[in-house]
Amino acid sequence: MIVILRSDATEEQIQHIVEKAEGLGLSANISRGVEKTVIGLIGPEDVLRVTPLEVFPGVEQVIPVLAPYRLVSREFKQENTIIKVTDKVSIGGEKIAVMSGPCSIESAEGMRSIAKVVKDAGANILRGGAFKPRTSPYDFQGLGEEGLKYLKEAGEEYGLATITEVMDSRDIELICKYVDILQVGARNMQNFSLLKELGKTKKPVMLKRGISATIKEWLMSAEYLLANGNFDVMLCERGIRTFETATRNTLDINAVGVVKHLSHLPVIVDPSHGTGKWGLVGGSAKAGIAAGCDGLMIEVHEKPEEALSDGPQSLIPEKFSALMKELDKIAVAVSRKLL
Amino acid sequence: MIVILRSDATEEQIQHIVEKAEGLGLSANISRGVEKTVIGLIGPEDVLRVTPLEVFPGVEQVIPVLAPYRLVSREFKQENTIIKVTDKVSIGGEKIAVMSGPCSIESAEGMRSIAKVVKDAGANILRGGAFKPRTSPYDFQGLGEEGLKYLKEAGEEYGLATITEVMDSRDIELICKYVDILQVGARNMQNFSLLKELGKTKKPVMLKRGISATIKEWLMSAEYLLANGNFDVMLCERGIRTFETATRNTLDINAVGVVKHLSHLPVIVDPSHGTGKWGLVGGSAKAGIAAGCDGLMIEVHEKPEEALSDGPQSLIPEKFSALMKELDKIAVAVSRKLL
Amino acid sequence: MIVILRSDATEEQIQHIVEKAEGLGLSANISRGVEKTVIGLIGPEDVLRVTPLEVFPGVEQVIPVLAPYRLVSREFKQENTIIKVTDKVSIGGEKIAVMSGPCSIESAEGMRSIAKVVKDAGANILRGGAFKPRTSPYDFQGLGEEGLKYLKEAGEEYGLATITEVMDSRDIELICKYVDILQVGARNMQNFSLLKELGKTKKPVMLKRGISATIKEWLMSAEYLLANGNFDVMLCERGIRTFETATRNTLDINAVGVVKHLSHLPVIVDPSHGTGKWGLVGGSAKAGIAAGCDGLMIEVHEKPEEALSDGPQSLIPEKFSALMKELDKIAVAVSRKLL
Amino acid sequence: MIVILRSDATEEQIQHIVEKAEGLGLSANISRGVEKTVIGLIGPEDVLRVTPLEVFPGVEQVIPVLAPYRLVSREFKQENTIIKVTDKVSIGGEKIAVMSGPCSIESAEGMRSIAKVVKDAGANILRGGAFKPRTSPYDFQGLGEEGLKYLKEAGEEYGLATITEVMDSRDIELICKYVDILQVGARNMQNFSLLKELGKTKKPVMLKRGISATIKEWLMSAEYLLANGNFDVMLCERGIRTFETATRNTLDINAVGVVKHLSHLPVIVDPSHGTGKWGLVGGSAKAGIAAGCDGLMIEVHEKPEEALSDGPQSLIPEKFSALMKELDKIAVAVSRKLL
Repeated sequence: MIVILRSDATEEQIQHIVEKAEGLGLSANISRGVEKTVIGLIGPEDVLRVTPLEVFPGVEQVIPVLAPYRLVSREFKQENTIIKVTDKVSIGGEKIAVMSGPCSIESAEGMRSIAKVVKDAGANILRGGAFKPRTSPYDFQGLGEEGLKYLKEAGEEYGLATITEVMDSRDIELICKYVDILQVGARNMQNFSLLKELGKTKKPVMLKRGISATIKEWLMSAEYLLANGNFDVMLCERGIRTFETATRNTLDINAVGVVKHLSHLPVIVDPSHGTGKWGLVGGSAKAGIAAGCDGLMIEVHEKPEEALSDGPQSLIPEKFSALMKELDKIAVAVSRKLL
Repeated sequence: MIVILRSDATEEQIQHIVEKAEGLGLSANISRGVEKTVIGLIGPEDVLRVTPLEVFPGVEQVIPVLAPYRLVSREFKQENTIIKVTDKVSIGGEKIAVMSGPCSIESAEGMRSIAKVVKDAGANILRGGAFKPRTSPYDFQGLGEEGLKYLKEAGEEYGLATITEVMDSRDIELICKYVDILQVGARNMQNFSLLKELGKTKKPVMLKRGISATIKEWLMSAEYLLANGNFDVMLCERGIRTFETATRNTLDINAVGVVKHLSHLPVIVDPSHGTGKWGLVGGSAKAGIAAGCDGLMIEVHEKPEEALSDGPQSLIPEKFSALMKELDKIAVAVSRKLL
Repeated sequence: MIVILRSDATEEQIQHIVEKAEGLGLSANISRGVEKTVIGLIGPEDVLRVTPLEVFPGVEQVIPVLAPYRLVSREFKQENTIIKVTDKVSIGGEKIAVMSGPCSIESAEGMRSIAKVVKDAGANILRGGAFKPRTSPYDFQGLGEEGLKYLKEAGEEYGLATITEVMDSRDIELICKYVDILQVGARNMQNFSLLKELGKTKKPVMLKRGISATIKEWLMSAEYLLANGNFDVMLCERGIRTFETATRNTLDINAVGVVKHLSHLPVIVDPSHGTGKWGLVGGSAKAGIAAGCDGLMIEVHEKPEEALSDGPQSLIPEKFSALMKELDKIAVAVSRKLL
Repeated sequence: MIVILRSDATEEQIQHIVEKAEGLGLSANISRGVEKTVIGLIGPEDVLRVTPLEVFPGVEQVIPVLAPYRLVSREFKQENTIIKVTDKVSIGGEKIAVMSGPCSIESAEGMRSIAKVVKDAGANILRGGAFKPRTSPYDFQGLGEEGLKYLKEAGEEYGLATITEVMDSRDIELICKYVDILQVGARNMQNFSLLKELGKTKKPVMLKRGISATIKEWLMSAEYLLANGNFDVMLCERGIRTFETATRNTLDINAVGVVKHLSHLPVIVDPSHGTGKWGLVGGSAKAGIAAGCDGLMIEVHEKPEEALSDGPQSLIPEKFSALMKELDKIAVAVSRKLL
């Protein structure tokens, strides 16, 4: 922790800070410059997070030196985490995972049919929402447990692992009975009550980045999961909110490299939400692999015209199949594989 | 709903859209320009929200004409909503409410002591957090029910209404036993499970704006509360996330006027979170009243140096008392009152 | 300058940095923590701005301690700068300046007529654009020198000081013949060629904040003016670009307090551009004064329906006159005056 | 142009708008819904840009139907523009262009040396700044004409085309004597005086996207160049400003696809500015090609530790050479080539 003092800070104020720090078990190192004095505080920074040094008289700025997350960091674990989802599906290794399916689960038949599409195209995880976070209270809110059953049946029939979103702690137990990966949506990235409960499950969790979360905050939310006991966590970049309105979100492609540098956890890219337009999904999916991600989440729907949610960003089966072949070429170009 | 077609849209594509719309009970009005054709669809837009016209062949853009919220709108209710919190405290009328106290409840004695400060300065609502949403899993998470007791006791002793944050649906019943107003924090603005449950309570709810929520999304979240039966809702502007790093958040002062224009619900301004620095709280609190807000939420702490959270943005009692007098002058200048 | 090292930095890497710093005339102070080592470099930081320490092996982060601006800072000059524009008009003292008029100068008669409105309402500076920065090459680009003449005549007839925007270094000499204050628009805030030339004039300059400029960058651009010899500089907050689309820009009301804290220069608020909607101008203008600004820039147009630019954010004369009286009440409430 | 009326708009107000529109040569088409009435105006929208319909009584919102740009649009020209820079270098065709070199030109010898690196690695355009836009007036501002000479000599010696930034209209003639491509920096994207002058030159221009420019504004700035006669324009995505601070800018990878869809002009990606960190340049460069860009701009410096600007984002020669080979693999995977 570094404390930069105001140029008019008094000797008494400096001593006040040093005493406080030493009382907390830290040692202080004072650098007196011509214009400003700087105090370096050495020791466990956690004790300082609850002591707001910014408010001490004479202080201009306080800068933490240590990252606030531990378990998710590369410094804690150097090798990449590989999550074993099922016997056949792992995420984080050489093979790039592809999670596909409709935004919302709409019927048993529809899920079976799209599962075939997903499987035939070469993807390995089936997605579908049963509990939908909708901006409007008047919009379709999902089929609930019935939808989970359809998802499980379709996944089993085609040998696909499954993923669905969990929005409420009270649904976790139910969802765990049906699916392989639990997804935390962008709107719940800082729903800390939910994160704590998910940290106690044994299922892999995919944590989507909040629409305006910094990478640091995102990693801190992942830390909640690991700190509560669940190390099978993957991070999903799904676009952030910026001033640009030509796309639904701005896919932060830099985030892939930043997270891979700071953390050992696998990174997934969601070009469907990251662009919001099916015509842009392919290009941004390719960009995700080129930048080094470990998996993709892509919405596919047989009749986007009739989708109950997110139709405009869904690919039709033929386009999805064609895209998978192109994505595999990029994967090979970066020494990975997809098909 | 207005559908703008691509310049290469065919007659067949146009008919396809018209038929679909008519099948949903809407009537279509086609304007053929030199470069582009536009279709106006007349009727209840709700049926169109679940039919993604953007994906129909030939469509360039779809623009909704009606606001997606109903119950929160000025069109639904023209006069301002005045919320009766207790016998003595109402929000939304001539008198500007002031909610003050520490970020976190830390002790019984501390709450009583700060309640006296708050009361003496002329504020009418006591705030304090018992369940704290913390970015880090290692930070202080609040005293829970014990804290609620301290808050209630201090409020009763000094005749102050009380407000605290609810983070989890499972805590609602407990919190309702102790406090007068339930606060939804910025991170939970789109925690729709929580909003639905809060819509079923009888207590007033203060809904903070999400850190990157548009005003429209914020109103849609309020709609969840009203649509579930709770009309005692106030909206709190607490700063949005922008590129500026000189302040913790950017207080969106324009939002006060926009919300008062679009909705009948009271608007609260939180200059403590809106700035993140105690030296800026006074100026932005005054700005809030000048812009037309119905209440303020201001953090006060007797020893910010020892606060367990948000110390840097808390005022000390003397500064708070002095500010309240200045705020009252602004209130009078806009034909309201505060003291 | 503080250099935070990576946890795997070697002793050799540390010595390499220390030697480099000492070679530049700085002294180094090393703090060795359990996890990280930090080097404090003491001396003139300017020499370090051109030496990118971030790229030295072993470095994780470099944090400047000193503000990069000098002449604009409160530390350089503690008392507020008061700019004497004409014999009658000063900016930065007790009286709050009001700059009003149309976005674009459209005719001689129009300017005279609006000048009367501006004068009668109690404002003291007449604005009008002769060279207009327009997003589209096909839009009205301004009347040029002819417009400047109309502005000057109208100003003289009603005893008003004048302000207009300068977009090109080649126009400075011409504009100086006609107007009292030179405005740099948001789009040119970092047009450093223009800033250097304006630094050499004797006329007061109003520097608008760039649409996505940090406060620090804004002060650095002002530093260009002062460093080239012109100390009569005022800063104009006119709204920043955020994700919110309900308003044209987001007026950063916090910026008023931040700039007054960091700098001695006067701060102007432009609620017309800051909101983009005439219905919001009044509330945000009041907020500006309440927050401590030294002046306002407000667009007024007699027939907004026929304005050649920015009609939607212009007030009609009656609303402007009424607003001026309300603004004066706020000014008095913060111990200033406006009328 | 579509005009959405307020729900309380009167018949008289509707007629007022219709008359105004018809007076401007447009025809009006009125759709009366249950809640709202909508007017479609058919004809040349340009006449409406200078008539602010938003301010007409009864109007709630005005929505343009036609894009405000013409010459840059795909509708104006369907096939991709290929710019012939020199006999050997074209941009926009099968081969992906690579522009490399130091941020600032520092010496004749340095340029020759880096030109060899650039050439040997397989890039075809040499970059270097002679006039530098610097945030601080106290930082290195570039070598001016002397630098241009070094750039030209080095380019000729190694058969590389050259590019440099122009900041001031007064420098255009001089710069045209020495370099092949004129670059407009992000800070000058809306310096319309400069754009108009550049539109009159015969040299290709690369227009960088402003740090917070929407894609629409960026295309409008390009329109200034084409409308003044210069059709050899390429667009450079170099990252936008967001709330994320882990990277210098957020590279908007979606923008590549959006621009290729809307316009026929070539798109360049600058991963050096787009990330600000050399460790992220490779991943984002690959992402750019995967997403469909026509060229890359990458900073290379032999001794980033001694670079006079932007050292932290510059690659050293060995890393650059290795990256070029990896980039070529991605190019081939998307049916292009780079080496």
